[in-house]
Amino acid sequence: MKIYNGVIKLSTFGNTDIIDITELVCEELNKSGIKDGFLLVFVPGATGAVTTIEYEEELVKDTKDLFKNLVGDTGPYRHNKTHTFGNASSHLRATLIGPSLVVPITNGRLDLGTWQQIVFIDFDNRPRDRKIIVKILGLTENKNK
Amino acid sequence: MKIYNGVIKLSTFGNTDIIDITELVCEELNKSGIKDGFLLVFVPGATGAVTTIEYEEELVKDTKDLFKNLVGDTGPYRHNKTHTFGNASSHLRATLIGPSLVVPITNGRLDLGTWQQIVFIDFDNRPRDRKIIVKILGLTENKNK
Amino acid sequence: MKIYNGVIKLSTFGNTDIIDITELVCEELNKSGIKDGFLLVFVPGATGAVTTIEYEEELVKDTKDLFKNLVGDTGPYRHNKTHTFGNASSHLRATLIGPSLVVPITNGRLDLGTWQQIVFIDFDNRPRDRKIIVKILGLTENKNK
Repeated sequence: MKIYNGVIKLSTFGNTDIIDITELVCEELNKSGIKDGFLLVFVPGATGAVTTIEYEEELVKDTKDLFKNLVGDTGPYRHNKTHTFGNASSHLRATLIGPSLVVPITNGRLDLGTWQQIVFIDFDNRPRDRKIIVKILGLTENKNK
Repeated sequence: MKIYNGVIKLSTFGNTDIIDITELVCEELNKSGIKDGFLLVFVPGATGAVTTIEYEEELVKDTKDLFKNLVGDTGPYRHNKTHTFGNASSHLRATLIGPSLVVPITNGRLDLGTWQQIVFIDFDNRPRDRKIIVKILGLTENKNK
Repeated sequence: MKIYNGVIKLSTFGNTDIIDITELVCEELNKSGIKDGFLLVFVPGATGAVTTIEYEEELVKDTKDLFKNLVGDTGPYRHNKTHTFGNASSHLRATLIGPSLVVPITNGRLDLGTWQQIVFIDFDNRPRDRKIIVKILGLTENKNK
C-alpha cells in the first residue's frame, strides 16, 4: 500500500470560476504509480469547492447561473458587515458543493464517465492563487481480474 | 490491506428516480470479505448522484420536489440550445449532490444509521442503464477493540 | 497501514445547529498516531450533515439563513403528514450537504486551510444526542519528502 501526495497550483479569476482540472489530476496519478485505489481531491479553504461536471462551455455558464440563482451576490449578509472582503455569498456557494471529492482508480486510470470532468470552482469574489491537494492511496500493482 | 472492486448495474426511469441501493452495496461488501475500512460509491457520469436519505415513500417524493423547486425543469438553459437531449436541469441537480460517497465499515458492516439508506439518484431526463462503482479498501480482519 | 476508529459524542440544540468539531476531530487524529492518510468523518443518520466552513459567528448565522431560504420550514411536505416529528425540512436540508467528508492528513495534521473548520450540522427539529464516526486510514510514519 502506497500513499502519494500531490499539489495542483492554479491562478483563478474567482467569481465562480469553474476550472477543468482533470488533466492535472491525471498527471498526479501518473506520477504516483498507483494502479488501484482511492484518489482524494481536497480544497484547503472555505471559498473553493471540488466536484465533477460535464465540462461543456454552455453548461459551465448554466452552472454559474445556478449558484447566482440559489445564493444572491448581495443578500443581507451579516458576514459582509464584519468582514470587508464582502464574500459571504462565496462562502455560502462553496458550502453547497463542499471541499472534498474521492474518485476510484482502476487499472491506473480514474473511473470517470466519458463526459465527466473534475472541476475546481473558485467562488471567491476576487482572483486567487490556489493550492489543491491530491492525495492518492492504493496499490502499485493491479490485482483486478 | 485489500482492495475490492464491485459494480452495481441498474435500469432506471430517469427524471429524478431515487433508488435505494443499500442492499446491493451490502452484497458487494459481503463479497469483499473486508471487515474494517472505507467503502466508496461512485457514479461515473454527470447526470447521476449518490447520497444517503431515509428511504421513506413520502420523503422520497418530497426529495424529488426539492430538486424541482431548486432547479426548474425548463430554465433559459444554454446547454439545451446546443445539446438536443435538453437535460441541463439534470446536470445542475446532480451537481448539487455530487457523484461520490464514502461510508465507513466496522465489524464487516456499513456504519449507517437505522433510518439511513444509500441512494442513487438518476437525474437524467430519460430512462438509463447505469453502472455504479463500489470500491472497498480495508482489512479482512477486524482490529477493533 | 493502520485503521483507527473514533467516535465523537455531542449534544446539540437541533434546528440547524452548526457545531465546530475540528478540535474533537484532531484529538482523534492524535490518538490514532497516523501521520499520512485519509480521515473520514461520517454522520450515521439522515438529519445531520458534515462539511467545512469558516467558523465565524456572523457567517454561521448566514449559513443558517441559507438553509431556511432554500428549504422552507413548513412546505407542503408529505413526510410530515405520515410522520409526527414533522422534520421533512431537516431531511431535505441534510441531503443538500451530505453525511460524509474525507480530509487528507499530512505530517500528522489535517490539511485544512487557515480559516476552514470541520462542522457538524444538526438539521433535526429538536435537540439530539449524536454520535459522529471518525475513521482514519494511513501510515504511522510520514513518507513525504
